[in-house]
Amino acid sequence: MRLSQYFLPTLRDTPAEAQIVSHRLMLRAGLVRQQAAGIYSWLPLGLRVLRRIEAIVREEQNRAGAIELLMPTLQSAQLWRESGRYDDYGAEMLRIVDRHERDLLYGPTNEEMVTDIFRSTVRSYRDLPLNLYHIQWKFRDEIRPRFGVMRGREFLMKDAYSFDLDEAGARAAYNRMFVAYLNTFARMGLRAVPMRADTGPIGGDLSHEFIILAETGESQVFCDRQLVDMPPPGDVDFRSDLQPIVEARTALYAATEEMHDATRFEREVPEERRLSARGIEVGHIFYFGDKYSKAMNATVHGPDGVERPVQMGSYGIGVSRLVGAVIEASHDEAGIVWPDAIAPFDVAVLNLRAGDGATDAAAQHAYDTLGRSGLEALLDDTAERPGAKFSVMELIGIPWQLVIGPNGLARGVVELRHRASGERHELSLESALSKLGSR
Amino acid sequence: MRLSQYFLPTLRDTPAEAQIVSHRLMLRAGLVRQQAAGIYSWLPLGLRVLRRIEAIVREEQNRAGAIELLMPTLQSAQLWRESGRYDDYGAEMLRIVDRHERDLLYGPTNEEMVTDIFRSTVRSYRDLPLNLYHIQWKFRDEIRPRFGVMRGREFLMKDAYSFDLDEAGARAAYNRMFVAYLNTFARMGLRAVPMRADTGPIGGDLSHEFIILAETGESQVFCDRQLVDMPPPGDVDFRSDLQPIVEARTALYAATEEMHDATRFEREVPEERRLSARGIEVGHIFYFGDKYSKAMNATVHGPDGVERPVQMGSYGIGVSRLVGAVIEASHDEAGIVWPDAIAPFDVAVLNLRAGDGATDAAAQHAYDTLGRSGLEALLDDTAERPGAKFSVMELIGIPWQLVIGPNGLARGVVELRHRASGERHELSLESALSKLGSR
Repeated sequence: MRLSQYFLPTLRDTPAEAQIVSHRLMLRAGLVRQQAAGIYSWLPLGLRVLRRIEAIVREEQNRAGAIELLMPTLQSAQLWRESGRYDDYGAEMLRIVDRHERDLLYGPTNEEMVTDIFRSTVRSYRDLPLNLYHIQWKFRDEIRPRFGVMRGREFLMKDAYSFDLDEAGARAAYNRMFVAYLNTFARMGLRAVPMRADTGPIGGDLSHEFIILAETGESQVFCDRQLVDMPPPGDVDFRSDLQPIVEARTALYAATEEMHDATRFEREVPEERRLSARGIEVGHIFYFGDKYSKAMNATVHGPDGVERPVQMGSYGIGVSRLVGAVIEASHDEAGIVWPDAIAPFDVAVLNLRAGDGATDAAAQHAYDTLGRSGLEALLDDTAERPGAKFSVMELIGIPWQLVIGPNGLARGVVELRHRASGERHELSLESALSKLGSR
Repeated sequence: MRLSQYFLPTLRDTPAEAQIVSHRLMLRAGLVRQQAAGIYSWLPLGLRVLRRIEAIVREEQNRAGAIELLMPTLQSAQLWRESGRYDDYGAEMLRIVDRHERDLLYGPTNEEMVTDIFRSTVRSYRDLPLNLYHIQWKFRDEIRPRFGVMRGREFLMKDAYSFDLDEAGARAAYNRMFVAYLNTFARMGLRAVPMRADTGPIGGDLSHEFIILAETGESQVFCDRQLVDMPPPGDVDFRSDLQPIVEARTALYAATEEMHDATRFEREVPEERRLSARGIEVGHIFYFGDKYSKAMNATVHGPDGVERPVQMGSYGIGVSRLVGAVIEASHDEAGIVWPDAIAPFDVAVLNLRAGDGATDAAAQHAYDTLGRSGLEALLDDTAERPGAKFSVMELIGIPWQLVIGPNGLARGVVELRHRASGERHELSLESALSKLGSR
């Protein structure tokens, strides 16, 4: 993409309304624009990050055997009356009346609707296990939306729903998502710690939040430091027993503020491993058994011919929230530092003197070569002065900057800058391209 | 994908509520499920088609220089009060009140919001031309939703918005979308005819609908038969003057029922070329100048330093509607006949005797080989009887069926069936795989 033909409205000044660093940087870097309280447009650069995060989430869900569908944003109130949540949910549910005076709502989650899909299509244990997920916009009418996309009202969530014949099957389904989540966040450059959590309005009796640590996190969390250092499970066979992987994590102390037990923490965790830090919730998984299937009469016939309510769990990842969470975990004074896997572009090519024949030719050659290597490059071909170009590239945080100017070219060199480490190297253009292309 | 692990709830019986063939087939083939009047879930197979159509639309928009962003589904009523459309739009607009008694609406279209983004970020003609698009769910509270996704309430639309300094620039932007649309629909196996159209609630004075012909089309259309036979423009330079391409199409008579002039039709079109047929609208483009920019004060400074309202157009494609439209145009007695480019899977591998060692091994080998060729295959590894397998595959319309059974294998052959033509060939498994892989 050529910057001269792109739409990248960055801001020089820090917007007054933004209280946290990710919100400030997302506005300044032109990732989002607020359209109403807690409702954002995703500008082209922000949308690229959102799509890359979404793609990683999707790949890891598919790998774990979940099947993607897409449920609508609006739901009939009738379904929620069946489960009893229509009255329970409170003011966070956006209730809507259509032209025929029928009650609708903007889905904050989809347990009811997916249970309805299940009960109308599946009859037998032979069709289990089943895990259906979608990545769709949700709405929660937060009383005080804030922190940008971290606590917005319209937000993008991946939510998966598992269906099993019995508790053992449901527990295995829970474990598959538990493991998939560890891998998902690791691929984004995040180390997420699973913590026992409250089940809240979803219900059920087993639940974990996945928390990433960031100084600016929204809540206090407590855990054994070993959990933070544990590598992700990686390439596992999802048909195998995953209980040992899950147990290795759940055996160690980890709790959010609501679930924290100071006495247990001190008893179970040696002092040097006690970690008390700020955390951001990026995923939440629940096992709730027959809470919805019983209320909504979603049953399956077992091998014994007996009909019973299906055992369910649900599994959420805050896709749009992750954009803010990653920035909270990865930024510096100059701006965002994107992890490679979710950066909006892989490389920025800076033409320091657009209009100069040799510099234009070298920049164009670099841009074309990177494209052929399968890299997404952003070519700054504008007439801005170098200082302004550098500031914007630092702000938007593309992992590599390839700096091409007339002075360097006269000496046969370009500069390759690594955003995360700040390292800079002068080398020939071909060496730089081959270094980038082989990554 | 293995059918035994997939979620493909097909129906044997034709649902009583479906009045048109695409709606019937979409329900029977398990593409969608209705959740409320005019509101659908996209089941896994349907979502695959939707995503492939979306990808083609996106590629052709990008090729024409449009830039993708993503605006939210909900909008503030305030913006629509600025343009005057909040009161004008009528009962089709879904109006919502949030917990703080602020007026929101579920966007039926985005002229106001994109104009707001423009006016807050662009000041100079140097940033033009600009065309911003998104692919997002919209809502129109149709009084009688029907025909499945063809006239639903929650629907997926691609809408692009162009910004130019003057009318000539805006006309060029209009032409780029005009050409991109011809290519977009052609890639889906559709021949879309542009027809002069009424501008309706969008406003403006130049507008074309893109209509595909189908016996079951929703409205009567009239055109010169030559338009239907004209090949798409194909690989054009979008920086060049596209007026000749557009004129070659707009010079010939073509009109929807509302715009039809029988006298002109008979005067301008020789009798043997007069085509009167049923049509389905799949795209609609508008040039409306400063209708929104003037009302909302979206101005740019020209090269002369003078500030003036920006000239705009908007360009819609009904992405979810296209799924139904393609089926209306491409089906037979047995089911859907997907054009290759948007089929949910490229090939179906039918294992006629799951559990038989040799048949399983051959089917598995076929499935693996097709995957390595970059083809998406659906492997029917279930225990169903062959007749039922054939029926389902005919119904869901995958372009190629590779039929592997013990009798054929004993003779060293498999059967390759082509869904569209009905042709069947017996050949060796390796020949079949190499034929499919080389397509």
